[in-house]
Amino acid sequence: MKELEERILKDGHVIMPDILKVDSFLNHQIDVALFEKMGAEFKKRFANKQINKILTIESSGIGVAVMAARYFDYVPVVFVKKANSKILNDGVYHTKVHSFTKDNDYDAQVSKNYLSDQDHVLIIDDFLANGAAASGMIALCKQAGATVEGVGIVIEKGFQPGRQVLEAQGVQVESLAIIDHFANGQVVFQ
Amino acid sequence: MKELEERILKDGHVIMPDILKVDSFLNHQIDVALFEKMGAEFKKRFANKQINKILTIESSGIGVAVMAARYFDYVPVVFVKKANSKILNDGVYHTKVHSFTKDNDYDAQVSKNYLSDQDHVLIIDDFLANGAAASGMIALCKQAGATVEGVGIVIEKGFQPGRQVLEAQGVQVESLAIIDHFANGQVVFQ
Repeated sequence: MKELEERILKDGHVIMPDILKVDSFLNHQIDVALFEKMGAEFKKRFANKQINKILTIESSGIGVAVMAARYFDYVPVVFVKKANSKILNDGVYHTKVHSFTKDNDYDAQVSKNYLSDQDHVLIIDDFLANGAAASGMIALCKQAGATVEGVGIVIEKGFQPGRQVLEAQGVQVESLAIIDHFANGQVVFQ
Repeated sequence: MKELEERILKDGHVIMPDILKVDSFLNHQIDVALFEKMGAEFKKRFANKQINKILTIESSGIGVAVMAARYFDYVPVVFVKKANSKILNDGVYHTKVHSFTKDNDYDAQVSKNYLSDQDHVLIIDDFLANGAAASGMIALCKQAGATVEGVGIVIEKGFQPGRQVLEAQGVQVESLAIIDHFANGQVVFQ
């Protein structure tokens, strides 16, 4: 998505060796007009899929997911919650996810009320690197018997294994911008 | 807001003595069409204010804030982050907030890059009870020299002191639904 790539080049900051900060428009301050265009683009990428629910994970995925839902006939958005401790609760599906950014594990939880075998799910997240969060969401869908129709990502780090991890599970992955590598503190897209 | 009140009566669950669960449409699963109407209603309530930024706090405020921004000329949304430990960081404004729900304190943080004395801020949150989170956001605005133009709330517990706490600071408070009290496990609106 050309506008997103241009925005990353203009406002993103590369912190060596491989961190890209985009908090001026994506995950701290939000450019709502850009999010709307990203939502429309996700619809194009998954136009052939029958989707009745969008699943994301707090916090940075929520804004993108809500905007995308407008283009998928206002399907419900469900956001997975991150719990530090595993509270015993029969009412949730849960799975352990490793955060490489924070170098810790959290328990990803979703209420059994909001994910079921009737659901055809589009998973949306802001970043794809190792695929840990998206794999966690796929695991939650499997527990619920839901069908994963695809994974939509805003920014993919193409040099990390996330895409392979997800595609190996038979899932269509669509990223709006794919970073091939960083060169001299600059982003180079695929 | 009539549609919101009806939805609370239909899908909300009162857990005695004074907890209202609305996670089927507000803070776990999101009804995006309803959020859009809430955004339009916030614009009506603050139509006379010049607002150039919406401030909210992760996670449940983000969806509402993003939808509201569409009706305020797509102003940027900034979401305050909750940190468990106070990491020393010169780049953020921060303040301590007490969570009555979880009975703990967290450090509310916002980057100095995204809040300044040029900002006329609408604060948006999902719930108003004791006013702790909204007061924290007002404190962050004050640190930045930003002007708080108002606080927009989805559901206010009118029997708790939040409104008085905020109005004592000279801030206009607009809530889309105000709960007067609970009676026999049912919500009674003001």
